[in-house]
Amino acid sequence: MMNQQIHLVSRPTGEPSTANFQLVEAPVPDLADGQVLVKNHYLSLDPYMRGRMNDGKSYAQPQLLNTTMGGGTVGEVVASKNAGYAVGDKVVGMGGWQLYSVVDASQPGVLRKVDTTHVPLSAYLGAVGMPGVTAWVGLVTIIDPKPGETVVVSAASGAVGSMVGQLAKARGARAVGIAGGAEKCDYVVKELGFDACIDHRAHSDFKSMSQALKEACPNGIDGNFENVGGMILDAVLMRANAFSRVAMCGMISGYNGEPIPLAAPQLILVNRMKVQGFIVSEHMQHWPAALAELGQGIATGKYKHRETIANGLAAAPEAFLGLLKGKNFGKQLVKLA
Amino acid sequence: MMNQQIHLVSRPTGEPSTANFQLVEAPVPDLADGQVLVKNHYLSLDPYMRGRMNDGKSYAQPQLLNTTMGGGTVGEVVASKNAGYAVGDKVVGMGGWQLYSVVDASQPGVLRKVDTTHVPLSAYLGAVGMPGVTAWVGLVTIIDPKPGETVVVSAASGAVGSMVGQLAKARGARAVGIAGGAEKCDYVVKELGFDACIDHRAHSDFKSMSQALKEACPNGIDGNFENVGGMILDAVLMRANAFSRVAMCGMISGYNGEPIPLAAPQLILVNRMKVQGFIVSEHMQHWPAALAELGQGIATGKYKHRETIANGLAAAPEAFLGLLKGKNFGKQLVKLA
Repeated sequence: MMNQQIHLVSRPTGEPSTANFQLVEAPVPDLADGQVLVKNHYLSLDPYMRGRMNDGKSYAQPQLLNTTMGGGTVGEVVASKNAGYAVGDKVVGMGGWQLYSVVDASQPGVLRKVDTTHVPLSAYLGAVGMPGVTAWVGLVTIIDPKPGETVVVSAASGAVGSMVGQLAKARGARAVGIAGGAEKCDYVVKELGFDACIDHRAHSDFKSMSQALKEACPNGIDGNFENVGGMILDAVLMRANAFSRVAMCGMISGYNGEPIPLAAPQLILVNRMKVQGFIVSEHMQHWPAALAELGQGIATGKYKHRETIANGLAAAPEAFLGLLKGKNFGKQLVKLA
Repeated sequence: MMNQQIHLVSRPTGEPSTANFQLVEAPVPDLADGQVLVKNHYLSLDPYMRGRMNDGKSYAQPQLLNTTMGGGTVGEVVASKNAGYAVGDKVVGMGGWQLYSVVDASQPGVLRKVDTTHVPLSAYLGAVGMPGVTAWVGLVTIIDPKPGETVVVSAASGAVGSMVGQLAKARGARAVGIAGGAEKCDYVVKELGFDACIDHRAHSDFKSMSQALKEACPNGIDGNFENVGGMILDAVLMRANAFSRVAMCGMISGYNGEPIPLAAPQLILVNRMKVQGFIVSEHMQHWPAALAELGQGIATGKYKHRETIANGLAAAPEAFLGLLKGKNFGKQLVKLA
């Protein structure tokens, strides 16, 4: 049986392009004892993948050249030499950008069976998966919002941002999003239930963004979940309250190597703020509680989520480049089967 | 009886000067019930006073114009209408830039009796006072160094920095100071017992400072106690380890309104750092433990401290301006009696 994979074949200098990727065919190897063969149904595309395309120091090993791009997947077990997994089991794992994955399922944590009775399989890559848990860990363990406080999140219509605001609302906080375009802002307020959403395309300079934040956050900002960095973060800090918290999750505005200085770090001192970077995979102890809340919220319809689905593995590079430019609306997936 | 006071008579634009201050004579008022009259022996000069000379938003109310400059003092009770204080008591409080203070001692926390049997009176303004507790709170509650970790502190020969390094050493950490000039660096290493000290005058650009930090911190930096900001903070962040902590105590490089952008805030994310601003007066619960360790350390000679003493109230403005330029060596005091 032949597999299809997308390899990283060159590293971008500045903005990445489809030329950095190549679709490759390779036979699916026979299973060894303990392994299972997963047919991947959906591939998750996430901003962190941009960082791994670079060769520099970061929290994760760089993606190796001429190997299959790493990434989260959901799928179905189609062959098994592992007693813990049966054909037909629905699973989530790091299958990568490929149609089939051979997984050594005896290693703890590499594959997780999921229940699709009340939660659709694809949601395990979004609201009830890594992005949802990322939102939960940053919001609950770093920002820790109190009722009545104001929480701001950038990339608010995305897989992470959309959950940050909904989780904040569930805790009695005021949720203010920042998103690109009127359509996304409409969705953030009307569908997701945020109190306000600022269109950063209509407020593309510091002064305008500051004024918009002042209007949307009349009592200042107590918590900021940062996905973007740059000017937006500068403007948020200008409105930060004493003892406010910033969960640093991503700084996508600098992913292509642009300088993204923080204009006024003295505000961290003046406002006695806590600014903390985190990576969700280093907070495994919180995953069960997070997945329980997120899964129940999605199953009951309390929490909304939205997906943009590209069709077929070959569409993955284009979809990924679109994600980096904010062309997606909600969680960006690739349908593989 | 006549008092002498120094008032703030104008706000600086940029660098302050002696023209911002004026020596004023005024009668000492009669005591009301509950009040005590303190003859101030020493006035403490501290970098935070520069911030209060401005009118802008900060954590403290601005110093009012044409009133006595605020500041910490130690002295002796010379008259009392408060049953809790007797003539001759040695006390520490916020007496301000003046020879005599009338203190409403019935308010909790405004005046504290101190024991000068083993600790000299002046030390209650430095190592066993607000600066020492500042060092303790930032180091112990934010940086929380583990044995073998590396802690860096700027303004290392000063009242706060000197204690940060000694407290870090007592916890088994490697202490690396940054100070201005060979003489101060010598003192930091040979007298205070730091493992290394970098002369920022000999390494006045980012590249040179980065290289010096690399040599002084071969295992990277786990904790940074920030008193300065600007280029030095940028260089420290470049050497920061995963999960490192920054206690933001002061950013004296920006006190005159100079922009002090942080060049690469994405390092907070890449290294999953915690950057936290704090003000010692908001951590009163830690003062007893801090003062106990600091007082015992000074009394036994385990911890060293050094003072620069200006003579007479009239010398205070000049001494304060010198402090802002690093002309002091250790704790800057003014002898008033």
